[in-house]
Amino acid sequence: MAVYTKVSAEDIAVFLSRFDAGTLVSAKGIAEGVENSNYLLETTKDKYILTLYEKRVDPADLPFFIALLDHLAKHDCLVPPMIPDRDGQKIHQLCGRSACLITFLPGVSVSHPTKAQAEATGRALGDMHRALTDFDMERRNSLDHDGWRALAEQCGPEQLDEIAPGLSPAIAQELDYLDEHWPHDLPRSAIHADLFPDNVLMLGDRVTGLIDFYFSCTDVRAYDLAVTHAAWCFSEDGTAFDDQLSKALIAGYESAFTLSEAERKTLPLLARGAALRFLLTRAFDWINTPADALVTRKPPQAFLNRLQFYQAHPEIFTI
Amino acid sequence: MAVYTKVSAEDIAVFLSRFDAGTLVSAKGIAEGVENSNYLLETTKDKYILTLYEKRVDPADLPFFIALLDHLAKHDCLVPPMIPDRDGQKIHQLCGRSACLITFLPGVSVSHPTKAQAEATGRALGDMHRALTDFDMERRNSLDHDGWRALAEQCGPEQLDEIAPGLSPAIAQELDYLDEHWPHDLPRSAIHADLFPDNVLMLGDRVTGLIDFYFSCTDVRAYDLAVTHAAWCFSEDGTAFDDQLSKALIAGYESAFTLSEAERKTLPLLARGAALRFLLTRAFDWINTPADALVTRKPPQAFLNRLQFYQAHPEIFTI
Repeated sequence: MAVYTKVSAEDIAVFLSRFDAGTLVSAKGIAEGVENSNYLLETTKDKYILTLYEKRVDPADLPFFIALLDHLAKHDCLVPPMIPDRDGQKIHQLCGRSACLITFLPGVSVSHPTKAQAEATGRALGDMHRALTDFDMERRNSLDHDGWRALAEQCGPEQLDEIAPGLSPAIAQELDYLDEHWPHDLPRSAIHADLFPDNVLMLGDRVTGLIDFYFSCTDVRAYDLAVTHAAWCFSEDGTAFDDQLSKALIAGYESAFTLSEAERKTLPLLARGAALRFLLTRAFDWINTPADALVTRKPPQAFLNRLQFYQAHPEIFTI
Repeated sequence: MAVYTKVSAEDIAVFLSRFDAGTLVSAKGIAEGVENSNYLLETTKDKYILTLYEKRVDPADLPFFIALLDHLAKHDCLVPPMIPDRDGQKIHQLCGRSACLITFLPGVSVSHPTKAQAEATGRALGDMHRALTDFDMERRNSLDHDGWRALAEQCGPEQLDEIAPGLSPAIAQELDYLDEHWPHDLPRSAIHADLFPDNVLMLGDRVTGLIDFYFSCTDVRAYDLAVTHAAWCFSEDGTAFDDQLSKALIAGYESAFTLSEAERKTLPLLARGAALRFLLTRAFDWINTPADALVTRKPPQAFLNRLQFYQAHPEIFTI
C-alpha cells in the first residue's frame, strides 16, 4: 500500500519506449495492491499500470499469473492482463526488480457494498470459475489448509494470547476441527484467493474489473467463494454479519456457476477455514510488523470475530 | 509522500456531487507532495486531484494558497488552482480534514534535469515572480532566516554532531555569518519557496505545471531563485555541482524577469541561506523521525555538501 521503489520519469520513459504505448504524459506513484510498487501512467495513447514486484511476489510465479490473466481475458472476464512489448516480452527488469506494464481498468473499490454490488461480485467470481474450468497451469497455495498449523506455530502461543486472551488454544482447537473435516474430494481449480472489496473495481452496481491476482493459486474452488464471503458480508471489524449481502453474493455466484450439493454443504466449513487463514496471516503480520512501520497493520480481531460467527452460524449457508 | 487518510469511494462520490465535475470513474491514492493525502480522480468529465490537508498544512493558510494560485492562473502561469463547487466554495471538510478539489495538470517530474529543462524552469519561476508583482496578500515564511537559529537549537548540538562530526559548530558559524550579512533591502514578494524538481511538471523541455505551493509565503524574492538553484543544480547527494544547469537556470529566470544588480550580488549569500534552510529542516526531520517511519528520511548531508560548495564558490553566480 505504498511506493517502495522510486522510478524516475526518465527511466519510465525508456521502459515505455519498448512498447507501442505512446509517450509519457503523467506518472503517479499509487498506493494500491499487495507489497508492490505501482505507478499509474498516462501516455499519448492510453492509461496503464506499471508494477514493480517487491519481495512478497516471487518472480518465478509471474508466468502463472500472466497465463491466468491472459486466459481470463480471452474468456471475456474483466481482468488486467500484462501487456507484451514489441518483442512479445511481458516480464521486464526495472530498478533491479521484475516489472510489468498492465492494462488500466476503470472503476473504484467500494467500502460499504450494497446487495446489488455483492450480487455482481458473486457473479463475476462465478464467471471467473467457469472460465477457469479449462485452465491447466497449477500454483501451490502457500497459505492453504496444510500450512495453517505451521503459521500458527510461527506466531507463537504467547504472542497470539497477547492479541486476544485465549486466542492460541482457540486456534489450536479450530485447527484440529478443520484437520478432521477438511474436504479432499471437492473440485479444485485456479482461484483468486483474495477477492476483498479492494480487489473488485466497480462503477455503480457493475463490476468493471477483478484485480490483484498475486495470491491466485490452485485450491478447492468453493473455498474462493468462502474467502469472498468472509471479505464481503461483514462490517470491517467483523462484528456485524449482513445476511442480505451473504444471500446476494451466493445467488450472484450461482447465477454464473452452480455449486454442487457437496460444495454447498461444505461452505460453512470452508468459511471457517477462510476466516482462520486471514486471522493467522493478520496475527503473523501484527506480531512481526513494528507499530510505526510503512505498512499499516490490520487488526486480527476482525477475523476472529468472523470465525466465531461462522462457528456459531452454519445455517447462514442453507438456502 | 503517502496516503494518510483513507477516503472511501462512496465518500469521494458524495464529495464530487457538489461540483460540476462529472461522476467518478476511478480514484487512486497517490504518493505525492508534502504530508497531505492525495487522490487522483478520473470522472466522466475530467481528471482532478483531491487533497486532504494533514497536520503539516494549517487550514488557516488555505485562503492565501487559493488566492495565490488564482492570481497566478489568471496571469497565465501553469499552476493547479482549487476548483469551486456550485456555491463557489473551495475549502471543504472530508473525513475530518480540510479538503480541496484541484485542477489536474499533465507532465512528469524529472530526476536528472537537462540544460533546457533547467532553463525552462528558471523561466517559469521568473514568469511567476513577474505575475506576483501585483499580488498583495502576505504569509509569513515560518522557515525564514529569522527562524533558523531556533531550528538549530531545537535540533540540539549533540544530535547535529551525530549526523556529521562538527556539524553543530559549522551551523553556528554559518548562522553568525548570515545574521551579519542577510539583506534587508531586497525586493520581497510571494514566493514558492520549495521549487524542487518534484514540484515542476514537464513534458520534454516544456514546463506544464508548478505544483505544491504549501510552503509559499512572503520573503526576499531572489531567495526563491536561490532555493531553486540549490534544488536543481547539484547531484541529489550534493557532491557534484553542474555549472551548465546553474547558468541555464539563471539565464532562463532572467529571460522572464531581470535581477537587479543588488539581487545578483546577493545570490551567493542567499544560496548559502537556502542550503542552510534545507540542511536544518532535514536535520530536524532526521533527528525526530524513526528510521522505519512512514515518511522516508532524507539525508541532511546532501545540503551540508551544497552549503560548503556555496561557501567556497561565490564566483559561480558571476555572469
